[in-house]
Amino acid sequence: MADNERTLANGRARIDFQTDPSRYRHWKLAVDGDIATLTMDVDEKGGLFEGYELKLNSYDLGVDIELADAMERLRFEHPQVKVVLLRSGKPRVFCAGANIRMLAGATHAHKVNFCKFTNETRNGIEDASAASGLKTVCAINGTAAGGGYELALAADYIMLVDDGSSAVALPELPLLAVLPGTGGLTRVTDKRKVRRDHADYFCTTEEGIKGKRAVEWRLVDEVVPGSKFEDAVAARAKELVARSTRGNGATGIRLTPLKRERSADSVEYSAVSVRFQRAERLAIVTLRGPEQPPPRSPEGMVERGAEFWPLRIARELDDAVLDIRLNEFDTATIVFKSSGDPELVLAYDAFLEASKSHWLAHEVAHYWKRVLKRVDLTSRSLVALVEPGSCFAGTVAELVFASDRSYMLIGTREGDNKPPAAMALAEVNFGAYPMSNGLTRLASRFLADPALVEVARAEAGRMLDAETAEQMGLVTFARDDIDFDDEVRVFLEERASFSPDGLTGLEANLRFGGPETMESKIFARLTAWQNWIFQRPNAVGEEGALRRYGTGQRPVFDTKRV
Amino acid sequence: MADNERTLANGRARIDFQTDPSRYRHWKLAVDGDIATLTMDVDEKGGLFEGYELKLNSYDLGVDIELADAMERLRFEHPQVKVVLLRSGKPRVFCAGANIRMLAGATHAHKVNFCKFTNETRNGIEDASAASGLKTVCAINGTAAGGGYELALAADYIMLVDDGSSAVALPELPLLAVLPGTGGLTRVTDKRKVRRDHADYFCTTEEGIKGKRAVEWRLVDEVVPGSKFEDAVAARAKELVARSTRGNGATGIRLTPLKRERSADSVEYSAVSVRFQRAERLAIVTLRGPEQPPPRSPEGMVERGAEFWPLRIARELDDAVLDIRLNEFDTATIVFKSSGDPELVLAYDAFLEASKSHWLAHEVAHYWKRVLKRVDLTSRSLVALVEPGSCFAGTVAELVFASDRSYMLIGTREGDNKPPAAMALAEVNFGAYPMSNGLTRLASRFLADPALVEVARAEAGRMLDAETAEQMGLVTFARDDIDFDDEVRVFLEERASFSPDGLTGLEANLRFGGPETMESKIFARLTAWQNWIFQRPNAVGEEGALRRYGTGQRPVFDTKRV
Repeated sequence: MADNERTLANGRARIDFQTDPSRYRHWKLAVDGDIATLTMDVDEKGGLFEGYELKLNSYDLGVDIELADAMERLRFEHPQVKVVLLRSGKPRVFCAGANIRMLAGATHAHKVNFCKFTNETRNGIEDASAASGLKTVCAINGTAAGGGYELALAADYIMLVDDGSSAVALPELPLLAVLPGTGGLTRVTDKRKVRRDHADYFCTTEEGIKGKRAVEWRLVDEVVPGSKFEDAVAARAKELVARSTRGNGATGIRLTPLKRERSADSVEYSAVSVRFQRAERLAIVTLRGPEQPPPRSPEGMVERGAEFWPLRIARELDDAVLDIRLNEFDTATIVFKSSGDPELVLAYDAFLEASKSHWLAHEVAHYWKRVLKRVDLTSRSLVALVEPGSCFAGTVAELVFASDRSYMLIGTREGDNKPPAAMALAEVNFGAYPMSNGLTRLASRFLADPALVEVARAEAGRMLDAETAEQMGLVTFARDDIDFDDEVRVFLEERASFSPDGLTGLEANLRFGGPETMESKIFARLTAWQNWIFQRPNAVGEEGALRRYGTGQRPVFDTKRV
Repeated sequence: MADNERTLANGRARIDFQTDPSRYRHWKLAVDGDIATLTMDVDEKGGLFEGYELKLNSYDLGVDIELADAMERLRFEHPQVKVVLLRSGKPRVFCAGANIRMLAGATHAHKVNFCKFTNETRNGIEDASAASGLKTVCAINGTAAGGGYELALAADYIMLVDDGSSAVALPELPLLAVLPGTGGLTRVTDKRKVRRDHADYFCTTEEGIKGKRAVEWRLVDEVVPGSKFEDAVAARAKELVARSTRGNGATGIRLTPLKRERSADSVEYSAVSVRFQRAERLAIVTLRGPEQPPPRSPEGMVERGAEFWPLRIARELDDAVLDIRLNEFDTATIVFKSSGDPELVLAYDAFLEASKSHWLAHEVAHYWKRVLKRVDLTSRSLVALVEPGSCFAGTVAELVFASDRSYMLIGTREGDNKPPAAMALAEVNFGAYPMSNGLTRLASRFLADPALVEVARAEAGRMLDAETAEQMGLVTFARDDIDFDDEVRVFLEERASFSPDGLTGLEANLRFGGPETMESKIFARLTAWQNWIFQRPNAVGEEGALRRYGTGQRPVFDTKRV
């Protein structure tokens, strides 16, 4: 079922998530005062892998990496921008969705992680609107099909040209026997709130829906005749600008390239190290605390720019996690470690909290929020080791709460002069970083007894030793020097011995107790069903729809309903 | 991957969902005043299919059909019972969960539908508690592993004997590379609210957890030494009896055997007909309205007993749906039709509403609620055809709202003297029958504009013609005689041409817009992941854990994390 690895284009050995506008091949980012235009103009020859062409503005992961980068740059480099116009650079087509030949030839693991990343990018577009008032208007001048319409669904306002042929469509099911899995079904029902029978009709109608019915059925917000389209788009953008409170004179910072050195078994960033112990199927990710105190003022933070420690380490962590996700499929477990002064971490958290009305502090906090959500959704076992000399405090402590399990060492190690491990909480642990289910990680953790969240809050700022942290429920196990290493070793070996798929399903359930949101539904109800379909012969088998698409041969289906 | 059909035991051709206590092979139902004891004592030789033995109180669908039947009988035949004790009839084992050899040899379609039914049965146990105050105490005297502990999780109160060996366990992942998929993971996180890292430890520890830690980690409510166990169980049961308001002198009705005649292409019940048009992959389910008015008093309803039309037709519909689910996998679409007098249906709904404080009316309404939830969760496309002479009113109209799409005929058919189709709403459409997401079907339908629910409510009792029903959003399309049949035919052909798996995933998303509940999470987040795992070679391949279990050979895993 196409689970051979495919060759990356241009002789590359790994997928790289770092880019910048000067290197974009598929998008153009143009900023004009408080309006930015993001134009999708996919380079057919610019596929990430060999073996397909990105026709009709169809996309692969490489295209989406640029979109994700552009959204981050709008947030950090262009704080004055209030509205993004999402457009196509091609005539008569907005976007044809995920490239089908890419999907048909991709490994299951790549397909699943490609969809996860594109989902995160679309959630990022919505987060820019909800958290920072950066509104998106999607101007569809042509056809938006499949992933193309799903991209539009992430916008605040969808405009469709009324020319008798331009339409929005989710043709995945009739055409390919898969789902509109990049949030499409969930946004149709939960964001656009399309009536379920209308949604059924829409999602089973290959040619999609156009004109007045698209508005009546809530699929788009407005249809406009071609002759008036440009004026209407400009008018809507202006209206949204007038309502936005973003920017107001702020100037951005530059997201400079990450410092990153890769060897066969490691990646070294400025504040993050990744060590691959491939024989044990481990990736050990160590975060280093700040080396200098926070700046004295928000202006000092702006001056530090991308070097400002909380932003720098978050960008590095994000890159490290994505690298493991898409390039290191054999990693069973990510081990989070840290080193540094927990008091300094708390000082940065206090600085961010005190500066939270400053646009940059606000963006940094929301960036951490998104990175931590990415960690929650990473299908690797996660374990935090809280050892002497570590700095799991405040924001960094969120990684302990994001982990499936955590071990904390009591006291010191023999012959080691590092100070005993201490954890500490800060205000940020109680609201700044909600998970995709809408709860903080501590609220998720203490679902049974919300009073324990308040107990923890009362201890904010205090250094908590291992026994205290265990007793407060902040770590799974506190163990002394005699037991710690053995117990951790046994755990890591055991984890590597279990079925990787079983663990993926287990962790996707246990990490998200309690309520669901539209966002969490996308990764649960929708994605889990899509992943199932991505395994079914009716989609991915030799005679399945995904493989047969474009061959002139009709797919052959096993007619059993499961 | 074991997708050959298996042979039913004893030469049976179909799975039959009808049974009664005199025919139970696996359970004993003993009623003693206000306490009933349900004892699981599985007959090893009583497997539903050939090829495995039900050792150690492991179960298959046949065992669960009896449990589901027993729960319904407790509700209708024994309204005086306030507490059910769930026990094992075997020494040292409570229940070993779903039979692994059965699972290993079952088709994917059977596995998925087996799990769906067992989930519905456990939800039924919880519904008995929530809706009718019938509390369940689970007394675990031995080991409750996998599905055995999942069964316990459905109880209100879990007691475990503290004998140094008895434990609760979810060993699915370490042992079989699958999930505890009968609600286990979701009830651990959302009902028992076990801390996520404890849950991680518990679900990856084959031998489970016993004694004090089981209580501390919220896995059970109480552990009791063996010598005091029986007294403690009796005491807890009495305490719950004292707190229950159920019963109070009511005597039950008998759930008499269904009238059912089967031919090759049809099943005829007293008020439901099923016609299989197998060439078109259709099951046409016609509901017949009542032929006599409702009784004048609740006593008259008790007198009619299982013949009381709302109960009789609901039981028949439930049996028909289950029969299609598990015996007619090739059915693509269920077509709901009805015939009869809509005014009479409304009269029954009004009677039930007026009698809702009577125990039997209460049970009938909640029974309908459960049957309708079963319809929502049936993985077949659902369409309602509202034609002249039909009676889609009140309760019966819920099938229109449960359908993926509905067509209503405007006026009459040429040469036909049946009255034009009319739909009507009743109070029951606005609260009595919530879906598993907690919303009524109309609230789900009108998520975008809750005011439309109120508009509909204002029309309750009125006969609504096709154009009115369409305009109010109650049906998808109203079509006249000229277009109706063609349009329906094209729809049904198209539906049969699509990928069955794609439709299953699509419908599982579009039917459940809006909020999620623990119940809906079980069928979404948990089940969808489990179904994915049930397709993965690590579980079901030749070298997978499910196939290799008990062979002495270790499974071989593809180590890729997806």
